[in-house]
Amino acid sequence: MKKLINDPKNVVDESVEGFGLAHGDLVEVTPDPLFVSRAGGATTGRVGLVSGGGSGHEPLHAGFVGYGMLTAAVPGAVFTSPTPDPIVAATLKADGGAGVLHIVKNYTGDVLNFETAADLADAEGVRVVSVIVDDDVAVKDSLYTAGRRGVAGTVVVEKCAGAAAERGDDLDAVAAVATKVNSVTRTMGVALTAGIVPHAGEPSFTLPEDEIEIGIGIHGEPGRERIKLESADAIVDRMLAPILEDLPFSSGDRVLLFVNGMGGTPLVEQYIVYRHAAKVLADRGIEVTRTLVGNYVTSLEMQGVSITLTKLDDELTDLWDAPVETAALRWGR
Amino acid sequence: MKKLINDPKNVVDESVEGFGLAHGDLVEVTPDPLFVSRAGGATTGRVGLVSGGGSGHEPLHAGFVGYGMLTAAVPGAVFTSPTPDPIVAATLKADGGAGVLHIVKNYTGDVLNFETAADLADAEGVRVVSVIVDDDVAVKDSLYTAGRRGVAGTVVVEKCAGAAAERGDDLDAVAAVATKVNSVTRTMGVALTAGIVPHAGEPSFTLPEDEIEIGIGIHGEPGRERIKLESADAIVDRMLAPILEDLPFSSGDRVLLFVNGMGGTPLVEQYIVYRHAAKVLADRGIEVTRTLVGNYVTSLEMQGVSITLTKLDDELTDLWDAPVETAALRWGR
Repeated sequence: MKKLINDPKNVVDESVEGFGLAHGDLVEVTPDPLFVSRAGGATTGRVGLVSGGGSGHEPLHAGFVGYGMLTAAVPGAVFTSPTPDPIVAATLKADGGAGVLHIVKNYTGDVLNFETAADLADAEGVRVVSVIVDDDVAVKDSLYTAGRRGVAGTVVVEKCAGAAAERGDDLDAVAAVATKVNSVTRTMGVALTAGIVPHAGEPSFTLPEDEIEIGIGIHGEPGRERIKLESADAIVDRMLAPILEDLPFSSGDRVLLFVNGMGGTPLVEQYIVYRHAAKVLADRGIEVTRTLVGNYVTSLEMQGVSITLTKLDDELTDLWDAPVETAALRWGR
Repeated sequence: MKKLINDPKNVVDESVEGFGLAHGDLVEVTPDPLFVSRAGGATTGRVGLVSGGGSGHEPLHAGFVGYGMLTAAVPGAVFTSPTPDPIVAATLKADGGAGVLHIVKNYTGDVLNFETAADLADAEGVRVVSVIVDDDVAVKDSLYTAGRRGVAGTVVVEKCAGAAAERGDDLDAVAAVATKVNSVTRTMGVALTAGIVPHAGEPSFTLPEDEIEIGIGIHGEPGRERIKLESADAIVDRMLAPILEDLPFSSGDRVLLFVNGMGGTPLVEQYIVYRHAAKVLADRGIEVTRTLVGNYVTSLEMQGVSITLTKLDDELTDLWDAPVETAALRWGR
């Protein structure tokens, strides 16, 4: 294992500390219990947004803390849900008097810990509503999940819900936006290589030199099938087909096309994936009106990508376009 | 070799085509000869900025085309300078009547081809001034260079010179800003693994499982030394020492601290590098007033990072902060 780390036990603490040092204009880091919150704290009268989950998916979630997106993020150990303690602390910090939305990726540990935290925060007088993200069409149940997994679509949920909170929507309305985004968002991933969890020191799975895994999870959980390496275009066809039929997306739809790198795949390849995905959608009469390409929901140094489609209407387009100022997404302000 | 590509011969064309499809609001792609230019063309009366070089370093350079930064970018084959033809075409396109600045990383092929292109553009009536970027302190001469190599500091040159052009500086003044940024910018890189050039199909060098290369170039050219893998903090110490003594940077200086991922190193590690670099600078009395962390000048899927310091004064700080709207850098507008 070759990594730019010190003691594997300290990877998350040191990385989050570095993140706080780098982005002190946007965030502050509370070390114990560990969470990241917006510089200047919650905005009075606005709904707070808290997300979190295992580390190793950076910039998710701390990279999305800031104006127009999350109020706080709770990083767990690598690929391990944070415990209720820091989630409660982040929730109290994120409350501006209008309640707090929890955005939770659908993994059993995350769901349980966020539930417990919501109850504890409620006992402290902060109303919490939770929305579960489960955008991954690859598999029904998985290693750490009952039901579908929450993957790259989480970024779209956090962006649009954050914009809704910023414009002054109340807690139920912000939750409704998050639920709506999740309901029109579908994702599918592929892995060429596995990431290595630092304290484990070994790849979380192994793929032969000529094989890839279609439908991979962001923790390296099994997907749909292992196949021989194919051309990028053929792989994109395999990923898009189940996405398109699942919602389904159809001719005349407007979509956000989001090609997400898993951490170890360079941009030069991500744009080759984007190119063919855009062509397939054009052929089907689906109009790509918004775009995101880059490493946003990663799996350590895994080589691979995911493709996410979100069906956009005027409201979601406006929320996507609304100003955002975070370490990982920034525009319009 | 596992990559998300189709025919290795088409990697650059297809990737740039995908880039153009993804960012049609910011850029347009001219396919033959291949270059990327700002959507809407050059701004009348403003100096145009053109950069370029071998592909494989994305988002450099096309990712920096847009308001406040480059007017056009010319991608060559992977790790291979573009020929004069597309550079001339991009230069003519980038001219708004106030002349064009060429920003050229110091590699022999790039320098020669940009020189030829400048002469040809001049013959077409476009005045061109060239600035060579050579921020890499690692080695004096290298595989493809006489003198120091141009590496991640190129981003800082392009950002500040672009802002100077946008505020209306004339060609000599924009060139002076670029020269000034280069003169106060120093970079050093490290590689843990090599990238694989698609048409070669093999890593461009090999490192044993327990070794790293200090002072690596962005094409995998040899650096200063190969050593056994150390802690991130020890590696950062080795990288910063020659940077700090070279300018030199001293107590009281204000700097931009830029930690750049080489393509295959996840953000979680980049922030661990940032953390220690920030501490070393604080211990020396050097104040980090601006920050950049992420994959900006990559070497395909190489695992590694570079650290860049730019000494900032009020002018360079203002130019860095000025609005920018490109695929890879965006703020303030």
